[in-house]
Amino acid sequence: MEILTKILSLSTKGNCQIIDITQGVETLLADTKLQEGNITVFVPGATGGITTTEVEPGLMQDIPEFFEKIIPENQNYKHNDTWQDYNGHSHVRATLLGPSLIVPFIKGQLLLGTWQQIIFIDFDNRPRDRKLIVQFIGKI
Amino acid sequence: MEILTKILSLSTKGNCQIIDITQGVETLLADTKLQEGNITVFVPGATGGITTTEVEPGLMQDIPEFFEKIIPENQNYKHNDTWQDYNGHSHVRATLLGPSLIVPFIKGQLLLGTWQQIIFIDFDNRPRDRKLIVQFIGKI
Amino acid sequence: MEILTKILSLSTKGNCQIIDITQGVETLLADTKLQEGNITVFVPGATGGITTTEVEPGLMQDIPEFFEKIIPENQNYKHNDTWQDYNGHSHVRATLLGPSLIVPFIKGQLLLGTWQQIIFIDFDNRPRDRKLIVQFIGKI
Repeated sequence: MEILTKILSLSTKGNCQIIDITQGVETLLADTKLQEGNITVFVPGATGGITTTEVEPGLMQDIPEFFEKIIPENQNYKHNDTWQDYNGHSHVRATLLGPSLIVPFIKGQLLLGTWQQIIFIDFDNRPRDRKLIVQFIGKI
Repeated sequence: MEILTKILSLSTKGNCQIIDITQGVETLLADTKLQEGNITVFVPGATGGITTTEVEPGLMQDIPEFFEKIIPENQNYKHNDTWQDYNGHSHVRATLLGPSLIVPFIKGQLLLGTWQQIIFIDFDNRPRDRKLIVQFIGKI
Repeated sequence: MEILTKILSLSTKGNCQIIDITQGVETLLADTKLQEGNITVFVPGATGGITTTEVEPGLMQDIPEFFEKIIPENQNYKHNDTWQDYNGHSHVRATLLGPSLIVPFIKGQLLLGTWQQIIFIDFDNRPRDRKLIVQFIGKI
């Protein structure tokens, strides 16, 4: 059993931008030579979230519309009283979605569904340089 | 330390059906003979989700009502413009809830609360045959 | 590779109380002497949830307001018909947020962002004594 911790660097636009990180994670997995185990993807930050979805143009609009509906940007968040950075909505969205995801793999392949991709959503209200943690536990 | 990857097969009705998979997971765990570690349950697909709840008749109605309230089925999703499969709501619900759950165990027993069960929610709008991934990491 | 399972005990007030457990988890991690791996935090119970956020006074109001907005306490939950304990909202909130979180660490330090803390939210409608599971997998 091995454990390996890697970084996946992204430049994001923020504002609920959805980034398909599947290929980036698969490339890191191939480098490890591990055959059976799981990967943890973790967002070190409080304005981004990780989940999976089908990456197609329709959902790339539906998902941001959903977050805007239940956690609107232009609402009075107490967070903005503290920092005046106007990303209270970003924080509440990230708290809801969560910062961690775990995906199993066998034979060196992620066990994702055919129409399922790993996505990072940057909820912040400005461009960011992100360094996601991708950690591998498994055996060769 | 061992890592073992198993399949839990389910036939589901969809439409926010909630399936208690606790016993299925416990049976797989007993087969592994592992004593201390954790299980990852993962949905390979973009229209189902995993979480825990108290499985009793009231919540089996409350939970689908909640998802229908915040992500209604009969609303205009752009996903449906792409595929005409009318399961845009299924995808947004699954993206929100997430496809992975991790549960620790010791002495060969899942560390769930007394009134807590592991549930798979099939958000799709039709019956499906599902093969959930249940992965075990631990020691004997 | 080692696996170690610990308990983090908390006395909570319930009613969406948010408790920063970062320091408690870090203390347990230091005790293990592990250098690289990950921790799983798990809530054994169906009325609490785990996530991360920036712990500052504004968000400590925004997050409970959000849960009250989408899953109000004073609404008719079928769960309350079953048990008359009037915590139907607590259960639906916990089901949505989820009971598990995984956080990687290297050099014995959690890989959290600078403004990111691990929080337990007690959604129940009364004070509780909670025993969270904190499980460590890693190497020295």
